[in-house]
Amino acid sequence: MPQFPLTNLRVVLVAARNPLNIGAAARAMSNFGALHLRVVNPYSIAFRKARSAMGASGLLAQAKEYSSVAEAVADCSLVVGTTALRARELQHPMHRLESGAELIRSALPSGNVALVFGSEKHGLSNDDLSHCHQLMRIPTREAHGSMNLGQAVAICLYELARESQPGPPPEKPLASAADLERITQGMLESLEASGYVKPRSEAASEEKVRRLVRRLTFTADDAELWLGMLRKILWKLRQK
Amino acid sequence: MPQFPLTNLRVVLVAARNPLNIGAAARAMSNFGALHLRVVNPYSIAFRKARSAMGASGLLAQAKEYSSVAEAVADCSLVVGTTALRARELQHPMHRLESGAELIRSALPSGNVALVFGSEKHGLSNDDLSHCHQLMRIPTREAHGSMNLGQAVAICLYELARESQPGPPPEKPLASAADLERITQGMLESLEASGYVKPRSEAASEEKVRRLVRRLTFTADDAELWLGMLRKILWKLRQK
Repeated sequence: MPQFPLTNLRVVLVAARNPLNIGAAARAMSNFGALHLRVVNPYSIAFRKARSAMGASGLLAQAKEYSSVAEAVADCSLVVGTTALRARELQHPMHRLESGAELIRSALPSGNVALVFGSEKHGLSNDDLSHCHQLMRIPTREAHGSMNLGQAVAICLYELARESQPGPPPEKPLASAADLERITQGMLESLEASGYVKPRSEAASEEKVRRLVRRLTFTADDAELWLGMLRKILWKLRQK
Repeated sequence: MPQFPLTNLRVVLVAARNPLNIGAAARAMSNFGALHLRVVNPYSIAFRKARSAMGASGLLAQAKEYSSVAEAVADCSLVVGTTALRARELQHPMHRLESGAELIRSALPSGNVALVFGSEKHGLSNDDLSHCHQLMRIPTREAHGSMNLGQAVAICLYELARESQPGPPPEKPLASAADLERITQGMLESLEASGYVKPRSEAASEEKVRRLVRRLTFTADDAELWLGMLRKILWKLRQK
């Protein structure tokens, strides 16, 4: 349910070695609605295996194969490479994923954007990088920066699809003050019947219970459920 | 390089089947600095394989094994389950990951938070879900909602680690899952003693009460107060 369509996004995997990673990348693409996969010089056995795997999506069957990064990104107006590096002698603007994604989002409506991932072992080569307009990296910790390829693809696509302004969580209607007071009284009566509340401290107890009930967050439905339970308990307490 | 430490996060994998997924989850955890893995009833061969895999991190060697979700989350004051479902009859607050992560971030400074993932095939069961206070889902598209486990873990941790506006200061410490379970059991016993719970419907009632208790927001202090009241009521109910 991306906020905007990833129709113009092209995910480019360069020299991927592991069929499981190619399959995982394709699955994440399908999850987030990025349906155009391009592979550059994949290990051909890996690519064949990934394509023939059980459950491989149509997306994988329609993936296009290229023999160079230049060809794979030729029709793209923005090319963003991904890297785990921080401090290579990068002659590119380097973004954290959060800001890189903003850049991609603003470019997508007007043309194709390539998002380029290097091989599992070596990442993107200097030659590959030279085809990129911008670079971005996923903000992993320094002690263990390098991510699994399938997971890196998934995270980048999630960031592109996520809501930039998360709305408030959906709330169920809350219990009315009258319901809360009914719960308060039901509890007080149960506490009196059970001996928890001692006669002299009644006013203090009432306040204590009233506050407690209001600190909990009862929805209207929960209040009704709770009242039903209380009534039954109270009935039983008074029965004898 | 998370903005805040994930020291208090506990990633809980329930009934994971595939050693590659367990390994992938552990790798993503290491990438984002969430170092505490808990597994509940893993397929034991899978767990052993994942542990002995080349390059498995120390994190995996130190993973703790539990035989129930209740035990695995007992010391956590917030338990958040993940699901691909949208419209199951969920009696829980359901968040998109973006807002669920905000909730987790604001709870982390004051106590342990469990982030719970179900098995690859079936996700979390209704019983598993009943131990969760809140649910969240990754905003995948409707046509292909279900994500790979390792990728889902990676995305959730990325969202927790990504840059965002820091949340409001932590409130009072919340009740632990163990306290909430004590309340659940106390209520159930009271409901049985009062006749509200009928013998045949016991399992369903237990789930219903467990969910109800987790929807309310008990602080540690309130949980103690509540338990004292429940004990007295129960004592009285049983007296005759």
